[in-house]
Amino acid sequence: MRILAAMRTTMKTSLDPADYEYRHQVRVRFAETDAMGVVHHAAYLPYLEEARVAYLRSKGRPYAEIRASGTDIAVVEAHVRYRQPLRFDDVVDVHTLLGSPSASTFQIAYLLTVAGTAAATAVTVHACVEASTGRPRRLDDWLLELAGGA
Amino acid sequence: MRILAAMRTTMKTSLDPADYEYRHQVRVRFAETDAMGVVHHAAYLPYLEEARVAYLRSKGRPYAEIRASGTDIAVVEAHVRYRQPLRFDDVVDVHTLLGSPSASTFQIAYLLTVAGTAAATAVTVHACVEASTGRPRRLDDWLLELAGGA
Amino acid sequence: MRILAAMRTTMKTSLDPADYEYRHQVRVRFAETDAMGVVHHAAYLPYLEEARVAYLRSKGRPYAEIRASGTDIAVVEAHVRYRQPLRFDDVVDVHTLLGSPSASTFQIAYLLTVAGTAAATAVTVHACVEASTGRPRRLDDWLLELAGGA
Amino acid sequence: MRILAAMRTTMKTSLDPADYEYRHQVRVRFAETDAMGVVHHAAYLPYLEEARVAYLRSKGRPYAEIRASGTDIAVVEAHVRYRQPLRFDDVVDVHTLLGSPSASTFQIAYLLTVAGTAAATAVTVHACVEASTGRPRRLDDWLLELAGGA
Repeated sequence: MRILAAMRTTMKTSLDPADYEYRHQVRVRFAETDAMGVVHHAAYLPYLEEARVAYLRSKGRPYAEIRASGTDIAVVEAHVRYRQPLRFDDVVDVHTLLGSPSASTFQIAYLLTVAGTAAATAVTVHACVEASTGRPRRLDDWLLELAGGA
Repeated sequence: MRILAAMRTTMKTSLDPADYEYRHQVRVRFAETDAMGVVHHAAYLPYLEEARVAYLRSKGRPYAEIRASGTDIAVVEAHVRYRQPLRFDDVVDVHTLLGSPSASTFQIAYLLTVAGTAAATAVTVHACVEASTGRPRRLDDWLLELAGGA
Repeated sequence: MRILAAMRTTMKTSLDPADYEYRHQVRVRFAETDAMGVVHHAAYLPYLEEARVAYLRSKGRPYAEIRASGTDIAVVEAHVRYRQPLRFDDVVDVHTLLGSPSASTFQIAYLLTVAGTAAATAVTVHACVEASTGRPRRLDDWLLELAGGA
Repeated sequence: MRILAAMRTTMKTSLDPADYEYRHQVRVRFAETDAMGVVHHAAYLPYLEEARVAYLRSKGRPYAEIRASGTDIAVVEAHVRYRQPLRFDDVVDVHTLLGSPSASTFQIAYLLTVAGTAAATAVTVHACVEASTGRPRRLDDWLLELAGGA
């Protein structure tokens, strides 16, 4: 059995919002619930995505402009831990922290809270690629800086 | 910073379909693609879900019956590693392997292939809970057996 | 061939925002785009839903409370006309107008605009049903009033 | 109030499967249900899409090839009437019929049945456009023929 090398998520998640840099709010849509009466587990990934797009916008880097400049930021790994269910109409704070830069990748840690209570934690790993070819591309300096790189 | 205990996914994933027990096929919908021209990363989770529902059905355990008996199988963790993009109309083989049983949880490892080439690997962690109360519930014997427990 | 009676959408849609009562804003998620580079047509329905939930909340009628009181508001018909594509990160104004009440149904007309330009129009037909039985239920007085009924 | 011209759906829907040309089967995913315990109304549109893609494939016209040849088939209108709820794990027959060709548009009528019982009917209106420019494009002859045009 060819066991894969360990997955690459290395960022730790914390249950303390103060350990994160940015906060974005989403409200649960009815469409995102499932027959268990709670938010379906797949619906969390668009929340994370919306939060990181909002984070980049807050830094003066709208993702639409990044893409227009020829760089796509691909998701190469996603890891979500569901702690307490989210329900219809919940207002969810998505706390984010960028980190763990490498030559062409970086990571984001997330904490989701509802009224201060932790509902989920997550880490996503991203790779910068040339939009035209899909080839890995060095992180732009501004992104390296955001991720805490030298 | 209160660092969380490590996440719980412990199953290893393999790139060899022969290491998995069951295979389920899905075909990529156009609705599942995104503006990068490939399948959106959130769309993989319903593929995994469809595969494990098909697996349970193949074992004579339709998930609808499990739910009707008062047990929900909640997703408590999901970890996906995206290796090669999936594209519209791709026929995807989702290989699954149940394992790592504990008192009330078990895990499933996945390999997604297209024409024999690995596209993604994943692990999900599941907890059996009482549908009415949401409280953890011991794995039924048949499930413990499927997961390779004593 | 047993031809069905005509569908029930009777409300007219207008391209003038002034003809609508309420405005709710959504921002397009990347997850909602497809490989044509625009928002997938199925993603509009959750926008309409989010807008009508916001409208009810603005009237002091949170949908979660309506459901808790034993009434579900089912969608029995949806009709969308796509005029101009929506794109990632677009800020969409969803204008809504309630109307056409009958004993147990009402309708909502929608106009979606981006920077003042019409992108889509829609009408949904809703039926009030008992949550427990699914049986039709007379519109509550407050809902009848909102819909312009006597 | 500038009332819009009537919407363009002109095809009639029938409750008799024999009035349709093609049948495609989908099985309801758990991810497609909502907190009312039934399939969310937005999830029907991908079923229709999957059915028309399967229909085109059955006619030797895979949609991926149509797109590769420079033509996109845009959805310009969608009209769904929900009759009986769909539930998790239901096996749904999606019956389709192409028709109503114009210079650059055609329509598809749908009947969704579960175990022979009508669950929904729908009509979608499609426009052929140049993939590169988005401009309307005459229906290819084969498509005109499928739609019953001269």
